[in-house]
Amino acid sequence: MALLMEHQFKQLPADKQVETRSFLESVSYLPPFFDCLGSTVFAPIKADIVGNITTIKAVYDSNPSRFKTLQKILEAEKEMHGADWPKVGATLALMWLKRGLRFIQVLLQSLVDGEKDENNPNLIRVNCTKAYELALKKYHGWLVQKLFKAAVFAAPYKVDFLKALSKGRMVKEEDCLAKIRQFLVNFTAANDTIYEMYTKMNAELDYTV
Amino acid sequence: MALLMEHQFKQLPADKQVETRSFLESVSYLPPFFDCLGSTVFAPIKADIVGNITTIKAVYDSNPSRFKTLQKILEAEKEMHGADWPKVGATLALMWLKRGLRFIQVLLQSLVDGEKDENNPNLIRVNCTKAYELALKKYHGWLVQKLFKAAVFAAPYKVDFLKALSKGRMVKEEDCLAKIRQFLVNFTAANDTIYEMYTKMNAELDYTV
Ligand SMILES: CCCCCCCCCCCCC/C=C/[C@@H](O)[C@H](CO[C@@H]1O[C@H](COS(=O)(=O)O)[C@H](O)[C@H](OS(=O)(=O)O)[C@H]1O)NC(=O)CCCCCCCCCCC
Ligand SMILES: CCCCCCCCCCCCC/C=C/[C@@H](O)[C@H](CO[C@@H]1O[C@H](COS(=O)(=O)O)[C@H](O)[C@H](OS(=O)(=O)O)[C@H]1O)NC(=O)CCCCCCCCCCC
Repeated sequence: MALLMEHQFKQLPADKQVETRSFLESVSYLPPFFDCLGSTVFAPIKADIVGNITTIKAVYDSNPSRFKTLQKILEAEKEMHGADWPKVGATLALMWLKRGLRFIQVLLQSLVDGEKDENNPNLIRVNCTKAYELALKKYHGWLVQKLFKAAVFAAPYKVDFLKALSKGRMVKEEDCLAKIRQFLVNFTAANDTIYEMYTKMNAELDYTV
Repeated sequence: MALLMEHQFKQLPADKQVETRSFLESVSYLPPFFDCLGSTVFAPIKADIVGNITTIKAVYDSNPSRFKTLQKILEAEKEMHGADWPKVGATLALMWLKRGLRFIQVLLQSLVDGEKDENNPNLIRVNCTKAYELALKKYHGWLVQKLFKAAVFAAPYKVDFLKALSKGRMVKEEDCLAKIRQFLVNFTAANDTIYEMYTKMNAELDYTV
């Protein structure tokens, strides 16, 4: 779990505001997560997420003090973009990014919870499918859903996935799962807060691609 | 056919050497071709091709006189990279790029030749499938082949595809096809020459992704 553990998300402060700078820093270590899935088939997904991060970073860099927290970005863009908002700028990028983060979160949670296909206990397809259904499916039209169904066959064996998350070192499954559990604490809290912010600010859209 | 006609490939000189600079210039207008297919599903394909072009351009820009023709690039990289060649650098990027170009070429040729599914004469799926089979299928593992089969359902109606190629202007099908025919002359010649060069130089690989 070197990959994720070395770059844990920060604990939320009492006011539950997510700081843009440290959020960007933490998520920037996530795209390699998709390399852990092993197949080049996942490269476009990684690219989509890198694109989201780049978009948010560009907005932040344009005025770091104005965009100190994610909430401030949404508020400023709402002001700035009028009727186009929220389908615009960093608001749109974060709307999609949080879904990718939720996919990762649910997949990892499902693994640490020991959920498995009893007939194929060494595969992670059920975990991927659960994550997909909770995080993304409703935002995908039938075609992308169909592509997902095909792509999930490229998901690696559980042991290889855990090994990849541990930067190639063989570690005991239990040690790895313990570290994932620890990573999930702040990661889940940060992402839940972002979801709540989108709901409260009426910034969530549910069109499909 | 504004999209393609405004940026025709140059006629090959007598020595059949493709000039890197003008080749890069011409292919740089092709990625929007995939926007003409209409769905965001094709964005990763466009990105892959843009990546190829960027790789080749970076090599060219590092020494424009040394890399004046595509042939010179392959020769220099063969020299430079030893055993890694040809799975490296601009040689690798052009190996894949030419397959994407061939896909476009066969698709357009099949359209101007009037090939169609008699039961669905206004679809272009048969033309896409033919192009895929001739240009790419053998370089794709079963999973990517499966993804292609799903993706082809997102291909637009013929009339919409031709309209998109004409930059949104409604043109008569016959006018559009005549312009495609004209575009194909130099485009096909350039790409055939690149294929021959890969064969002659033993630079072609047939691993699958
Ligand atoms: C030859 C073979 C052919 C095969 C072709 C297959 C093509 C496959 C296509 C796969 C799609 C890859 C996944 C990407 C999906 C994206 O379309 C969606 C929507 O993306 C958003 O769209 C937006 C456009 O919106 S609009 O203008 O409002 O319409 C923006 O572009 C936004 O970027 S932004 O930074 O600029 O704001 C962007 O993220 N992205 C996702 O679904 C996120 C995917 C997250 C990862 C999921 C993990 C799945 C892992 C599966 C593992 C088994
Ligand atoms: C949540 C939903 C999940 C869905 C997930 C779906 C994912 C879909 C994946 C789709 C794949 C998109 C198509 C891209 C395929 C590429 O893998 C291949 C091989 O690409 C090469 O790989 C190489 C790696 O090689 S290796 O190191 O030696 O292994 C290089 O990276 C090379 O780039 S280079 O410039 O750096 O040299 C690169 O082009 N590309 C293609 O197949 C080309 C596709 C051309 C376009 C085809 C047009 C099809 C249109 C279909 C229309 C119906």
